Amino acid sequence: MSLKYFFEPKGIAIVGASREKEKPGRVIFEILLENRRRGLLKADLYPVNPRAQEILGVKCYKSIQEISGEVDLAIIVVPARIVPHIIEDAGVKGVKGVIIISAGFSEIGNKELEEEVKARAKKYGIRILGPNCIGVLSPWSGIDTIFLPFYKELSSGKKVVNLPRPKPGYVALLSQSGAVGTAAIDYMSGEGIGLSAFVSYGNKADIDEPELLDYFLKDPKTRVILMYVESIDDGRRFLDIASKVTLRKPIIALKAGRTKAGSKAAASHTAAVTGVDEVYSAAFRKAGIVRANDIEELFDFAKVLVMQPPSRGNRVGIITDGGGAGVMATDMAEIMGLNVPELVGETRDRLEELREKGFFPEFSIMENPVDLTGSVTSEMFIKATKILLESDEVDIVVVLALHQVPGIPDPPDLARKIGSLAYSYTKPIIAVDTGWSEAAILEREEFDKNMVPSYPIPERAIKAAWALHSYGKYLRDRGVYEKYIQHFIKFRKEWRKRACGKEM
Amino acid sequence: MSLKYFFEPKGIAIVGASREKEKPGRVIFEILLENRRRGLLKADLYPVNPRAQEILGVKCYKSIQEISGEVDLAIIVVPARIVPHIIEDAGVKGVKGVIIISAGFSEIGNKELEEEVKARAKKYGIRILGPNCIGVLSPWSGIDTIFLPFYKELSSGKKVVNLPRPKPGYVALLSQSGAVGTAAIDYMSGEGIGLSAFVSYGNKADIDEPELLDYFLKDPKTRVILMYVESIDDGRRFLDIASKVTLRKPIIALKAGRTKAGSKAAASHTAAVTGVDEVYSAAFRKAGIVRANDIEELFDFAKVLVMQPPSRGNRVGIITDGGGAGVMATDMAEIMGLNVPELVGETRDRLEELREKGFFPEFSIMENPVDLTGSVTSEMFIKATKILLESDEVDIVVVLALHQVPGIPDPPDLARKIGSLAYSYTKPIIAVDTGWSEAAILEREEFDKNMVPSYPIPERAIKAAWALHSYGKYLRDRGVYEKYIQHFIKFRKEWRKRACGKEM
Repeated sequence: MSLKYFFEPKGIAIVGASREKEKPGRVIFEILLENRRRGLLKADLYPVNPRAQEILGVKCYKSIQEISGEVDLAIIVVPARIVPHIIEDAGVKGVKGVIIISAGFSEIGNKELEEEVKARAKKYGIRILGPNCIGVLSPWSGIDTIFLPFYKELSSGKKVVNLPRPKPGYVALLSQSGAVGTAAIDYMSGEGIGLSAFVSYGNKADIDEPELLDYFLKDPKTRVILMYVESIDDGRRFLDIASKVTLRKPIIALKAGRTKAGSKAAASHTAAVTGVDEVYSAAFRKAGIVRANDIEELFDFAKVLVMQPPSRGNRVGIITDGGGAGVMATDMAEIMGLNVPELVGETRDRLEELREKGFFPEFSIMENPVDLTGSVTSEMFIKATKILLESDEVDIVVVLALHQVPGIPDPPDLARKIGSLAYSYTKPIIAVDTGWSEAAILEREEFDKNMVPSYPIPERAIKAAWALHSYGKYLRDRGVYEKYIQHFIKFRKEWRKRACGKEM
Repeated sequence: MSLKYFFEPKGIAIVGASREKEKPGRVIFEILLENRRRGLLKADLYPVNPRAQEILGVKCYKSIQEISGEVDLAIIVVPARIVPHIIEDAGVKGVKGVIIISAGFSEIGNKELEEEVKARAKKYGIRILGPNCIGVLSPWSGIDTIFLPFYKELSSGKKVVNLPRPKPGYVALLSQSGAVGTAAIDYMSGEGIGLSAFVSYGNKADIDEPELLDYFLKDPKTRVILMYVESIDDGRRFLDIASKVTLRKPIIALKAGRTKAGSKAAASHTAAVTGVDEVYSAAFRKAGIVRANDIEELFDFAKVLVMQPPSRGNRVGIITDGGGAGVMATDMAEIMGLNVPELVGETRDRLEELREKGFFPEFSIMENPVDLTGSVTSEMFIKATKILLESDEVDIVVVLALHQVPGIPDPPDLARKIGSLAYSYTKPIIAVDTGWSEAAILEREEFDKNMVPSYPIPERAIKAAWALHSYGKYLRDRGVYEKYIQHFIKFRKEWRKRACGKEM
């Protein structure tokens, strides 16, 4: 894979490594050094700074050429005007790729300087990520060029986590904007979603979205690709490659600048002309890209698409122990164009029979939503879930397991058992538990660990169901649904092997 | 106030108090006893159970009549068929109100039994809350009839919080559904929103929404009223009183059963016929009720309306250190019908002047959004916020203070300073910091404590801005905007006195 040295480099020169605390060149070098000490990063590290003998105990080089070991990647954190000179230096050394963190190029009208950098890199066959970007992060390989430190020391002296890095996982994140990228990384860490790799590509002087999509199509760690996009330059090329990717891996795009006012704001911020929103929507749909409307949806969709197979249809079966939660879920399903069909056939019979036998509460309602009422027990939830997973009348199962009732003595245990059950089916399942109590958080965490994506309100779960339906329909229309499911089953098996998704 | 004995009773009989752990009658009695021991609940407690001598060390009574002290409230947790007899007993004793937790009445077709209970209560002038409800909770007075315990013991032996009770605050919550009510309580505890009182009224055999609205209109602790509604029976009476309330206090309603499928689900769950959604929407709008579409919006709107004054117009001024976040906020503003006007007059001049002097970064963008870029400092955020708060060109200020950048060394300190600044203005302000890192959580908490409502993504902040605009417009149309603002200023002053909203 052509861009592999960006994500799994063997030797890294940090040009502009600094002894001054909080300088980007210092933060990046320190993080990489720490990752290497922890055994995570395998690459050799070479700080480059003509005015330093050593940084953090590591020998410092005056130039890249001075380094004797192999260097396939250079991270450049020096003032913009010096960058062409550094490229020259890297070229002579035989560096394959450079990440130009430095700003001060086309984004502020300095197009000539950017052209000069491009020309010199081309001469040596060097590939460029950036400039004006925050680069690359992969929790698998330990590469991390994000110059924002892990910790901040407050004026009280208290040290607090500033920007946690997500755990290793299967979701790739591409962001034109560095700020949105770091905000998204901070957000995803808290949502328990693992990362295969993050890339911020800034001015995209060389490497752009289509090439990155192609890389992640082939990257075995990446199962789902997220994109934050403000503008796309070469629409045709982008859609060509995106259409290829979505046959095998879902792409979820958050396209900002949707409205006239928003695109005006986008234009002044990245100096890129934002296209008309409807055009993007239609093009995304045609290429099988799932569109998210905000950061919350972006990660909600990522979670469901990495953990569950896309659905065979739009019929949602809902199980709940709180009637009102069922009503809210049904409302949202209808709004999203999903169907909450009446249960009429065998499914209804199986449920009714168990109610008559006294297994389900006397006043439970065996329609859709299946309302097991506040008298529910964990066993009832599991049984009803099994019946809906086996039903021909629904394509997606949504379990609203509000933990507060007395009949669920061990909420995370219920989540574990439903996860274990769902693993034997290729019908997707999504869970909800409302609230922020310890029990709610533990129940949701346990669902997630068992590959049943969970959400704190019914509406987010239903939107996730829509994402499964939308992508499933695309795959079926393209005739690759069954093939995708086969891949998914393999992936799920590997996940389970790794101790129930500890890495996710 | 006629219903005061439900929320601040002097003597409480718990009829059906039980010695068996986890029985509702036991859980309720135990919680009340604990609240009394902690000095929170002032009322005397009288467990009533003919088959027990004492429960948890407290003398048990065979009937309500046997109690010698004053009893103004009886909580009834006995099988439905015995309830008429208990009402008789309460009537002779002179009890003023009963909360009938017991189910098994009209909700399962047992209308006659409910009528009998109503008739007997009427004979004695007893007011009924319920039946088939979870009753009342007030963190101020310590009354708490929610039979779901604080803790659950998992099978591992670990004790986890099952249903935390919110801290004392200024938001009242009315819920027809008990399950939605408890889920909402669990949700709001985690969102840091304080509660004035919670009421679940179930079958509303006697006390209904209009009467509760009237109570909360007069309740000095309640500033904002939230409602979860599936159906409203006496629409005219409800709208009459709601229109009176909204002149002084905002009502935010989450109406479930919005769609055809949703209302079918609602009908089977509460045996109530749900009205057509458009009718509700129009009626809510006319009565000045702000409508929420899900639990997230319900509490997001509650937070903004309790902490900030409604706005004088729909013009939003946005300040950000991340261009992309600004674009997303602008998109959502346009979608919600808000205006993000170009800054042209004095505001622009003040900002530009400071940029030229080198106070703001060279490449910051003094349009709207004001993009201070990743080179922002805390001082710049404060200065720009002050300029927008003083601007005649915007009605609402939204500060997107993404903490990850190096120039914000102490994120909660920035939040505190912006809160302190905003306190001198009657222009509303809303904040965003994205992510779930410690720094993000601390920054948002500090904003909230200083009455600047904060959200984890730009879109939720903009929807909150819409709520301020929507309610502000209603107040202006009714000619009571200035009067409302005067009340708000008084409330805010009292809040600040109480050590910056510690109680909120």
